Amino acid sequence: MKTIYMIAGFYLFVSSINFLQAKPRTGEPIQPIKRPSKVNPKEVELGKKLFFEPRLSKSGFISCNSCHNLATGGADNLKSSIGHGWQLGPINSPTVLNSSYNLAQFWDGRAKDLFEQAGGPIANPGEMASTHALAVKTLSSIPEYRKEFKRVYGTKKIKIEHVQRAIAAFEKTLVTPNSRFDKWLGGDDKALSKHELTGYQNFKKFGCITCHNGPAVGSNSFQKFGMVHPYTKDTKTLGRFNVTKKPADKYFFKVPTLRNIELTAPYFHDGETWSLAEAVKIMAWHQLGLKPNKDEVKSIVAFLKTLTGEQPKIVYPVLPPSTGATPRPDTTK
Amino acid sequence: MKTIYMIAGFYLFVSSINFLQAKPRTGEPIQPIKRPSKVNPKEVELGKKLFFEPRLSKSGFISCNSCHNLATGGADNLKSSIGHGWQLGPINSPTVLNSSYNLAQFWDGRAKDLFEQAGGPIANPGEMASTHALAVKTLSSIPEYRKEFKRVYGTKKIKIEHVQRAIAAFEKTLVTPNSRFDKWLGGDDKALSKHELTGYQNFKKFGCITCHNGPAVGSNSFQKFGMVHPYTKDTKTLGRFNVTKKPADKYFFKVPTLRNIELTAPYFHDGETWSLAEAVKIMAWHQLGLKPNKDEVKSIVAFLKTLTGEQPKIVYPVLPPSTGATPRPDTTK
Repeated sequence: MKTIYMIAGFYLFVSSINFLQAKPRTGEPIQPIKRPSKVNPKEVELGKKLFFEPRLSKSGFISCNSCHNLATGGADNLKSSIGHGWQLGPINSPTVLNSSYNLAQFWDGRAKDLFEQAGGPIANPGEMASTHALAVKTLSSIPEYRKEFKRVYGTKKIKIEHVQRAIAAFEKTLVTPNSRFDKWLGGDDKALSKHELTGYQNFKKFGCITCHNGPAVGSNSFQKFGMVHPYTKDTKTLGRFNVTKKPADKYFFKVPTLRNIELTAPYFHDGETWSLAEAVKIMAWHQLGLKPNKDEVKSIVAFLKTLTGEQPKIVYPVLPPSTGATPRPDTTK
Repeated sequence: MKTIYMIAGFYLFVSSINFLQAKPRTGEPIQPIKRPSKVNPKEVELGKKLFFEPRLSKSGFISCNSCHNLATGGADNLKSSIGHGWQLGPINSPTVLNSSYNLAQFWDGRAKDLFEQAGGPIANPGEMASTHALAVKTLSSIPEYRKEFKRVYGTKKIKIEHVQRAIAAFEKTLVTPNSRFDKWLGGDDKALSKHELTGYQNFKKFGCITCHNGPAVGSNSFQKFGMVHPYTKDTKTLGRFNVTKKPADKYFFKVPTLRNIELTAPYFHDGETWSLAEAVKIMAWHQLGLKPNKDEVKSIVAFLKTLTGEQPKIVYPVLPPSTGATPRPDTTK
């Protein structure tokens, strides 16, 4: 008899927990950011070192983190990035945060994934201005790196593919879960204010959600900038056309993620817009042919700010010293 | 009776611990690096943010950490640093590690302490190229900074002095204790190899110790570069003379710390020497009129490498976003 009571009691107890537990909102067009499941901590640690490694650049001054600064939303907050010799890049630096969710990398999607992307800036004469051969020679001249690459990839000889793999592995961990919006998605009704919720409703109602959806609130399609009304501030950057060479792809860009958008001004591929309210108005007009009123814009901005998640906690790496065999940094332009 | 046994036993036990404990070597001309005793964690945290804050520069691209990189021994490992518009500085960037031990800051000692130093590069047109007014305006435009300065200094209005104080407070924590040499000083006989100990004996015997002594193994005097034989690689940089205007101070420089020296190539104020062995030979000849043989040089280099301490463990800061009132970064030269 006692056992029956116990079982019944336990059953009631468990049911009440289920009842009290917040019910996730699974029907929404936006899904929560999740931490990656399979991670090799040693590979990630090596990738972190390489991400902060200025010796991957010709000058020994520029690292991945220079333009994708993890202190400032994974971007540099400049109109366009500063490369070797203070060259100003042709396009705004996209955030590295949650970039594993991107359908492709770069604004024009010319790299299919983070692995492919990681090789780009190192050898771009306007960015890090090194070469893959020089980067590999530099790393190979440092015994600690040789040891670490061997431990992670079992290789005696460092190859640029290993460098890219390690950086990509680190970048996959750069996600920002537990934003207030994600808490709301998880069932926490108090995570959003009424004003922010109104913003989300407007975001859906006006049609922003058509392109900005999924876990990254964007990043999963290419769309024309100026779909309804042509965007005339920048007509030189052709976007997706540069990859496909199809005239119909002119001015198509990867829809950027809106996660952490409050941290990553200035906005758009041209970095011409510094205010989030202004950015919302530009999008509404050029993409949707709409002119939302001040309150509507304000509410959408309030909603967008709920997309700021927990920033990755990074212990700043200590990099191994160069040796006599390490190619010397070359700061000449 | 039992109590007496207990007391006697306890006494013997404690004595044996004392007996077994390593005896610190207190008579040496080098003393161990110590962590600072009085630290205000909130001030240090604010200082850390400012140390990594690129918005203290005109371009929004250069922070203190750009040239005093905590990933690479607190220096940039370049001949001379890269400043605004890719200007190459006139002198090698000294390490920020253990810099609280310096008798004065900069190679020529023109700043009396870390507080005074912190104001320099921000407003130097060749370095961060901002002004104190612009730096304060930038920080004041960001509510999180206003709040944090208020919490630490009780001030409603951020002043450049607060910025300097916070950066200096953070820098005071950037010490590197527990090097192998310091363990040996602490009494651990096994911390150094015979070869390294020979190096230390040579270091003392040849007279390097005359200038490189104290906890920082240097940093406590100005000395002429070329005391015995003139140094001719660089005759343009006048060092201490620039501060005192006394002809006798020409070519006098602050004796740099040798702590973590293996991490901070290239060497000397001109950054002309990349190899530590070469640096030892140059010092021996120009400062002491000596030509140590290969083995002696090797042993001194081995000893110098035992001065690498525990690098500060830095959790990379997350910086608060700019607002509409924040002055925009200006990347023009």
